[in-house]
This record gives sequence, structure tokens and C-alpha cells, in this order.
Amino acid sequence: MTATVIDGREIAKKIRKEIYDEVVSLKSKYKVTPKITTLLIGDDPGSKLYLKLRDNACNKVGITSDHLEFDENVSEDEITAAIQNLNNDENIHGILIQYPAPSHISQDTLMSSIDPKKDVEGFHPYNMGRTLLGNESIVPCTPLSVLTILEHEEVDLKGKDVCIVNHSNVVGKPLAALLLNRNATVLVCHVFTQDSKQYTSKADVLITGAGVPKLITPDHVKKDAFVIDVAIIPTESGICGDVDFESVKEKAGKITPVPGGVGPVTIASALKNMIKTYKNCFEDA
Amino acid sequence: MTATVIDGREIAKKIRKEIYDEVVSLKSKYKVTPKITTLLIGDDPGSKLYLKLRDNACNKVGITSDHLEFDENVSEDEITAAIQNLNNDENIHGILIQYPAPSHISQDTLMSSIDPKKDVEGFHPYNMGRTLLGNESIVPCTPLSVLTILEHEEVDLKGKDVCIVNHSNVVGKPLAALLLNRNATVLVCHVFTQDSKQYTSKADVLITGAGVPKLITPDHVKKDAFVIDVAIIPTESGICGDVDFESVKEKAGKITPVPGGVGPVTIASALKNMIKTYKNCFEDA
Repeated sequence: MTATVIDGREIAKKIRKEIYDEVVSLKSKYKVTPKITTLLIGDDPGSKLYLKLRDNACNKVGITSDHLEFDENVSEDEITAAIQNLNNDENIHGILIQYPAPSHISQDTLMSSIDPKKDVEGFHPYNMGRTLLGNESIVPCTPLSVLTILEHEEVDLKGKDVCIVNHSNVVGKPLAALLLNRNATVLVCHVFTQDSKQYTSKADVLITGAGVPKLITPDHVKKDAFVIDVAIIPTESGICGDVDFESVKEKAGKITPVPGGVGPVTIASALKNMIKTYKNCFEDA
Repeated sequence: MTATVIDGREIAKKIRKEIYDEVVSLKSKYKVTPKITTLLIGDDPGSKLYLKLRDNACNKVGITSDHLEFDENVSEDEITAAIQNLNNDENIHGILIQYPAPSHISQDTLMSSIDPKKDVEGFHPYNMGRTLLGNESIVPCTPLSVLTILEHEEVDLKGKDVCIVNHSNVVGKPLAALLLNRNATVLVCHVFTQDSKQYTSKADVLITGAGVPKLITPDHVKKDAFVIDVAIIPTESGICGDVDFESVKEKAGKITPVPGGVGPVTIASALKNMIKTYKNCFEDA
């Protein structure tokens, strides 16, 4: 039997509808339009395209989104001063930094400069710590997207064997914490793992984000597993994920496609976080 | 061949010697004796015994340790006000809370009230977030103790299969982050895991802290694995750990005993953290 293919666009649409309604209600309560600002350093064309997509998504749900653009030679002090201004500006309810940033600017410094209550991406150490401690507040968008898909499909995580192929700060590590908070058994493997297949092939839920096309073949997958592909890899024939979709879908129980799976839900998850930071500006965080 | 038994007391002695020397040098630099304060709520006899042990350990390395004691009916506001005073007191260089605290007092609130730079236990969300992000500063004592033992034995963690039997905030979750930061493959299992043995028995390094005597038998252990027992379980015949020591030591390559393994290194690790908070009070954190 072929796997159920998860329609990420449909899930994202549902989230956007909920957010639209919430924005209407919160605007009438707080008497101000939610506004977020993104800092863009340098002129990476991919970043500009992504920002355009996000601006569109924001506008559709009633959130104002603008950008501060900086030359790629800007100093770290100038960027952190700009972040301080945004922290103190009561008309700004959320702050994002568009990566990649130039190498002379420390990502740790940027992340730590944002007021945690306006930290849309959830990368500030304080928010990351709350994620680790199970006192979750603002959670990074990709892990939040994975959770949203699992909840949408009514997966009870307690005692499930979950394997994550990624151990980055933005995906694997916070996602592992979120899954442990829900009492899943969690295995994190990555490029240094000696034999990933022995682990991926036992997982009830396999979440992969290695950035390697066709890395995950049916051999890596347990029969009827839920396979979630968070990779977004540009190729000559369009974007693809880690999973060899056509063959794996014959073995998995549920599967997310690329494109149209995790991606749209991640953008909608960023909108969810914007609502949280907007509320934080008016209520106790 | 029988496993090498790790002598935790010997490792702790070495750390204490290093700390003693560092305290002498820092005292002459900062012109003030390091002083830490522990908040004790209620009169749990186990807590009082533990505090006495820690006071002794502090005194031996030149750190002054005192306590603030509160009735078990104290309000959360009174405790957080006391923490604020300690945060602002320039003669106090580190703050600890002795758990268990009464159930009407939120552990999250207490942890978040301590100034992160004086947070000896590393439980503040900001410090936990830095641990998760690989920008480690003050790391919880038990995970730090495990790392210290692995480093002492010169274990190269990159690509090693590590299994942790514990998913708590004080041991399993921060330890998983620390091991992923060092590029180990990390599996976290716990009471909800369906079949722990399939994972424990593949681990190059097995770290267990379930609190169940004789949980780990030779069946659970890979030949020549490094077995680290962080459990401290009081029984009628003294304290023991999770590991059935006599039988497992015939299969493991290295093994920590209970008592005399992780425990003494954990107390020494708390002293290490006190030096960090002391330095934080005089230098940029």
C-alpha cells in the first residue's frame, strides 16, 4: 500500500486562517497592527526571494513586515545598535535576522542581542533554554513545523522511536528537546554517524534534514513509518529533499513531499511565532 | 578481561587541586574571597546532609559557602525577593537552590530568578540555551561530570554511539546537547521507551541514570563499552547505581562504580562552576 502523502500546503492554509482570525481579534484588543522587522545583511539573492515570500505571507494575515538592509561590510556594533533600537521601539513587535550573515559578524552575538520577547525565530539562548527545559515559549520554526505536522496527523509521541538525521542548532537539537519533552525515544544521527541505517530503519518517525538528495532509500525506512523530510535542496530540476520519494512512499505509512510538505508549514509556523511576540509586547511573557 | 574501574575520587582530587590553585591566584587578582550562598527551603534531612558535604568541599578549596534557610511555608515572592537581593549583592559570587523545594513554589520561577552569571547550577534558561546552542558557559554539574570523566579517559566522542538512559532537565537533555555538540551519535531512552536493550546494547558509551537498581545487566551492554552510572540510589545496604556492577564489569571496557564514580566528580564539577560564576562577577561573561 502506498503511503499517505501529507499536504503541507493544506495544513499551512488552515494555520493561516486561524492566524488571520487571531490577528483581527488581537488588533481590536491592542489597537495596533502587528509589525515585524527583518535585518538583511548583504545582498544574497536567495535571501531576497525568501523575504518576498514571507512578506506576502505576512500581508495575507494582516501582519506588517518590513526590512532593514545593511551593506555586507557593516560592523557588528552597527548591527547590534540597530537591534537595540528595534528592541526599544514599541511599534515593532518582532525581530528576525535573515541568514546567511557575513562571516565577520557573530551569529551568537546577533541572536543574543534580540530581546527574547521579540525573538520570532526562537534562537535566543533564553528561548532555546526554555525549549530544552520543556517550558516552551517561542520555538524555532522548522522544529515547530514538524511538531505541527505530527499533531495534525494525531501521532501520540509517547514511547515512539524517533530518529532525526540532523544535529544543527536550528533543526536537530531543538527538535530532539521538543520530542523528549513529549516522551518520545529520540536518536539523533548526522554526518559523523558510523551506521545511520541501523537507526533510521527502526524509527516509527523518521525526520531527515541532511541536505543530500536521495540519501533516504527504502532500506533506511521501517515499514509503515512516518517519514518527514525537512531538507530543501535546490537542483537543476527544481527543489528536492533527502528522501527518494517515489520508492520510499511504497514502504512508508505517511510521508511529506518536497516541495509542498514541511516548507509551507514552516512559513506558517513563523507567522505563529509572530503572534506570540506580538502578544508578548502587551502581556507578561 | 575485567573492565577498568574509574576512580572518581581520584579524578575529583585532581580537580580540587586545580581549583585550589586557581582560587589562590584569583583571590590575589580580585582581592576578595569567593562566596556562594545556597537557599534551603524546609528541612529535608537529605538536603542538610548534602549541604554539609558541599560546605566541606568548598572550604577545602578556599570558597566560603553559606545558606539562607526558609520555612517550608514561605511564599514564592519571598524567595524570589531573597534571590534578587543575592543577585544585587556584590559580595555573593554564586547562588544555588537546594532541591527538593515545596510544591507550591515553581522550580521554573526560581531558576529564572537567579542572575545567569551567578547561576552555579547552570539551570537558568539562558545558560541551558547556551548549552543547547554549543556556546557552553555554565553547564549542569552531572552532565559536566560525565564529560569530565570522558575527557579524563581521552574518549574521542566524534562518531561514537552514545546511549543515555534518562531524559530529565538536570541530566539527560543537557547531556544529550553536550554530546551532540561534540559530534557523537546520541540516543536518549527512558521509562517510556519500548525496548531500551536494542539501543543500550549498541552503545560505545552507555550513560545510565534511571534510579533502578540492577536495571543494566550484561545483556544491555556492548562488549568493551564505557559504562557510566550517574544514578545514586539509597538502599538498606548503602547506596548503589543502575548497573549490576559485578556482572557488567566482566563485559564492559571501562566502568564507573557507585559510590566512588560519578558522584565525587559531580561535587568537584560544582566547584568548577563556582569558579566560573566568581570570574563572571569580575569579567565580562
